[in-house]
Amino acid sequence: MLMKLVKLGGSVITDKSRLRTFSRSSCDRLAAELAPARGRLAIVHGAGSFGHIEAKRHALHKGFRNDSQIQHVAAVQRDVRELNLKVIGSLISKGIKAVSIPPAATATFKGGAIRSFDPEAFEQVLGLGLVPVTFGDVVPDDSMGFSICSGDLMMEALAESFSPELVIFCADVDGVFDRDPKRSDKARLIPELGRAALSELGRTEPKHADVTGSIYGKLERMLAIAQHCEKCMIVNGNVPGRLKKALRGEKVVSTVVLPG
Amino acid sequence: MLMKLVKLGGSVITDKSRLRTFSRSSCDRLAAELAPARGRLAIVHGAGSFGHIEAKRHALHKGFRNDSQIQHVAAVQRDVRELNLKVIGSLISKGIKAVSIPPAATATFKGGAIRSFDPEAFEQVLGLGLVPVTFGDVVPDDSMGFSICSGDLMMEALAESFSPELVIFCADVDGVFDRDPKRSDKARLIPELGRAALSELGRTEPKHADVTGSIYGKLERMLAIAQHCEKCMIVNGNVPGRLKKALRGEKVVSTVVLPG
Repeated sequence: MLMKLVKLGGSVITDKSRLRTFSRSSCDRLAAELAPARGRLAIVHGAGSFGHIEAKRHALHKGFRNDSQIQHVAAVQRDVRELNLKVIGSLISKGIKAVSIPPAATATFKGGAIRSFDPEAFEQVLGLGLVPVTFGDVVPDDSMGFSICSGDLMMEALAESFSPELVIFCADVDGVFDRDPKRSDKARLIPELGRAALSELGRTEPKHADVTGSIYGKLERMLAIAQHCEKCMIVNGNVPGRLKKALRGEKVVSTVVLPG
Repeated sequence: MLMKLVKLGGSVITDKSRLRTFSRSSCDRLAAELAPARGRLAIVHGAGSFGHIEAKRHALHKGFRNDSQIQHVAAVQRDVRELNLKVIGSLISKGIKAVSIPPAATATFKGGAIRSFDPEAFEQVLGLGLVPVTFGDVVPDDSMGFSICSGDLMMEALAESFSPELVIFCADVDGVFDRDPKRSDKARLIPELGRAALSELGRTEPKHADVTGSIYGKLERMLAIAQHCEKCMIVNGNVPGRLKKALRGEKVVSTVVLPG
């Protein structure tokens, strides 16, 4: 059965500049936009300011350096679960039968990458008519001790396993621009992006702590995901209605990521 | 390396008679008693009033009957994660590097029993010096659709895998009595309980909703656990200091469960 796979970006459901600040109204609205979606649905959310700020402060993305990091591994995992509980609560409040599946419940990690992924837990809850929700997290890592599993890494694993009909990334921008739209008025949206166009993009550093890599790393991941789905797109999760329309297959302002 | 395995009973860390009522002061005190424990530690907690009341109301312990249950599977899973987050927060506040491992992350279930259990996730976090915390939960079930995994079921799986030196169940009574101590003044504590003594116990029904079986089912499980550890005991988690002393190997009011 066909599946839709949706990423709720950490920059949309949290204020990435302020530690552990949940954007409840945005999350509730996106949950309401997700609720009418037909067919099987899986959701991934970023960690936003519940993860990146403290993870960066204690260099958790670099793996085990010293014992003093371990308490922060526990603290950040707790914080991320607090966000996950808020997201699950928001989804349930809009009628979505959401259940949490932490990344380490279905995957093992090595060198910051997925070593193995077993989709069984996702298949089981999907089979019951539930909506699995996974997220970016600090995870045990075979070579690094621990590492960061980004939400995008889980998006790729799910896309590979389930070949979804539609993959939507909800970001805090309209899509991919030819330069940073937050810094330049001349930035123009790229409606369709393939590997060739990616290499021509201007490069800038992110404004807020992000331990899961730059936008270019994310786009590389999306190009890989585009190989496994019928349509892969980035929409602005802060503009009401965009996600809902995209889920219905209507044309919206977006960047469609093309395979290859 | 030797491990201690501790169950925080749902009747101690929640008010089992009142929906979703966390007993924060009890949990914080038990966390403070756990904090000085030497060596590896794993913790399991019950679901208490975050799980049993709604699970019983919607017959989740009987497995899939109709689609209307599915929303309650999601709701109860969310509620249990709310409790788990509170417990993790309480443990971290006392300096315990606690991380959550939901039962379905390491086990699969069939007919309300564990079909398979993989201790790798526990081994990994223990190896990092973290304290894994698992709990009673609603879980996918191969034959029933979904079922209840009790905290005690996870206790048994962990005891089998890790052969702990010490297993402690924190209950809301001093141990096992020859009759229900909440109903009879004449009830006498049984300091050591084996299979023979179990069959002589008087039987009464529990006061509050419990979808994981009677005290006799729990004792059967403890007898099985006693086979896999050096010492298995029940202590009163509501009496300050009992858990702490038991962890240090001091003699406390308790029932020691004997193997076989």
